[in-house]
Amino acid sequence: MPFNFITIIEILGTFSFAVSGAFAAMEKELDPLGVLIISFVTAIGGGTIRDLLLGNTPVTWLTDNTTAWVIAISAVAAVFFGSTLKKFDKLLFLTDAIGLGLFTMIGIQKCLQHGLSTGICIALGTITACFGGVLRDVLLNKVPLIFQKEIYASACIAGGLLFFIMRKWQLAENPDYIAGIITVFVIRLLAVRFNWSLPIFYLRKKP
Amino acid sequence: MPFNFITIIEILGTFSFAVSGAFAAMEKELDPLGVLIISFVTAIGGGTIRDLLLGNTPVTWLTDNTTAWVIAISAVAAVFFGSTLKKFDKLLFLTDAIGLGLFTMIGIQKCLQHGLSTGICIALGTITACFGGVLRDVLLNKVPLIFQKEIYASACIAGGLLFFIMRKWQLAENPDYIAGIITVFVIRLLAVRFNWSLPIFYLRKKP
Amino acid sequence: MPFNFITIIEILGTFSFAVSGAFAAMEKELDPLGVLIISFVTAIGGGTIRDLLLGNTPVTWLTDNTTAWVIAISAVAAVFFGSTLKKFDKLLFLTDAIGLGLFTMIGIQKCLQHGLSTGICIALGTITACFGGVLRDVLLNKVPLIFQKEIYASACIAGGLLFFIMRKWQLAENPDYIAGIITVFVIRLLAVRFNWSLPIFYLRKKP
Repeated sequence: MPFNFITIIEILGTFSFAVSGAFAAMEKELDPLGVLIISFVTAIGGGTIRDLLLGNTPVTWLTDNTTAWVIAISAVAAVFFGSTLKKFDKLLFLTDAIGLGLFTMIGIQKCLQHGLSTGICIALGTITACFGGVLRDVLLNKVPLIFQKEIYASACIAGGLLFFIMRKWQLAENPDYIAGIITVFVIRLLAVRFNWSLPIFYLRKKP
Repeated sequence: MPFNFITIIEILGTFSFAVSGAFAAMEKELDPLGVLIISFVTAIGGGTIRDLLLGNTPVTWLTDNTTAWVIAISAVAAVFFGSTLKKFDKLLFLTDAIGLGLFTMIGIQKCLQHGLSTGICIALGTITACFGGVLRDVLLNKVPLIFQKEIYASACIAGGLLFFIMRKWQLAENPDYIAGIITVFVIRLLAVRFNWSLPIFYLRKKP
Repeated sequence: MPFNFITIIEILGTFSFAVSGAFAAMEKELDPLGVLIISFVTAIGGGTIRDLLLGNTPVTWLTDNTTAWVIAISAVAAVFFGSTLKKFDKLLFLTDAIGLGLFTMIGIQKCLQHGLSTGICIALGTITACFGGVLRDVLLNKVPLIFQKEIYASACIAGGLLFFIMRKWQLAENPDYIAGIITVFVIRLLAVRFNWSLPIFYLRKKP
């Protein structure tokens, strides 16, 4: 794996996903090994589900030691320097949002290699980016956060759509992926800044 | 996929599974995207687990756009016309029960192609039909319904058993699958009509 | 499968895993079929996740009828003779601990066949031994026990580490696996006897 720009984003994204998993596990008072496991699941869960569905086995992180090391270091950092890390919560949020965009596009890229349809590519891109968090919440016995709060998966879908529109209209040659990542990133930022969420117009009225 | 009788049942079954997922998600007040995701998981979860265990990858729904469209339409219908759909709850129950039978038999058929033993075929047939609902309940943070209430998975097992008995004794040539589907359907109907459930004779007595 | 020493341990381990699943399900008042399903998931869940990640499909228990029979008998025994079985809880604990060690080493062995790195081998060995219990707890809507109480997964990791140290230093030729199994077994015993658990030093202070 050449240590280029994408690699740096990927490492930062993995780091912030793993740290978010570790913090959620520490809040539930899991033991240090439990924290490590939840970190792992949060960081590699989405990509693993995608690889299993596509039949890309052994799944990526089994053979790529970088990922495993980044996650292990993230979990240790969260356990020992949690309060320090929390001071950088805005930075973590930014790397998380970049990671969200990058993982969406990695997922879409892998689906394109399998010749899948546009809709399925976007769905699997979104799964890649979001289902680590879904598994984290299931393991911690909570209703997955992304089903309830803020624009999260929707940002991935929007980024994926833009990517395919640009691709179809040949609006750009190679930078489509970058455009997708930036779209996810910006929408996620705006969503949190302005507290956007999808309307739940079918709520049962309570007396 | 030729648009024949089986296809129609499959679409109806997928529709009613997806709608049941959507309603369960709306009850938990998920946002529209969460509703769509739960619809998907409910409708394709069982078949996906079966395909993963067998190594049939990429799993079916990645390459079969019909399924994805049926589910998306079901979720949208549930979100926008939920109260109308609920008026047809008896019809939905019937299509759900037919779907249960069909998906059991599809699962058994795929296992037979892999030359698996009778018991494993029936088990995977039941998983195909029931584990979408199990995943739905896990994601919504509930103990899976099928482990607790009514005859549900048992109907699939009974249908599977009948299929293999007929097959062994050459009671019929091709219509075995149809007989299995009808068995599951009828048992499920009777179970709900007469409120059948498996006896839980090991319950701890409460003072 | 030749009926040798390892086979006997494997059957005993599967039996005690399945019984632990059945008891947990009965406590949650599931119906008999639910108990059987939870038994199955507890006993084969870890190995199934390992096989899926590695791409070893169809997964082992689909083609190995011994496992399925052992689990079915365990579940029936737990349902009908639960109170008798509970008198042997110390024996069940011992077979469970041996099973823990054996399944860890089976997992490591399969990873070595795929040429994976030491850390990943130990991780997948631990997953093989522990994630059946994780799935059991997720299905029963609980935070997985192994993340919170006692030394459990840590024993597997310690056994795996010892195995690789012995292997590297050529301390033994073939009995490495046995040494690993015994390590897991002994640590697990000591952990329960002396009530060991990992320190949770990052707990939020409560006022």
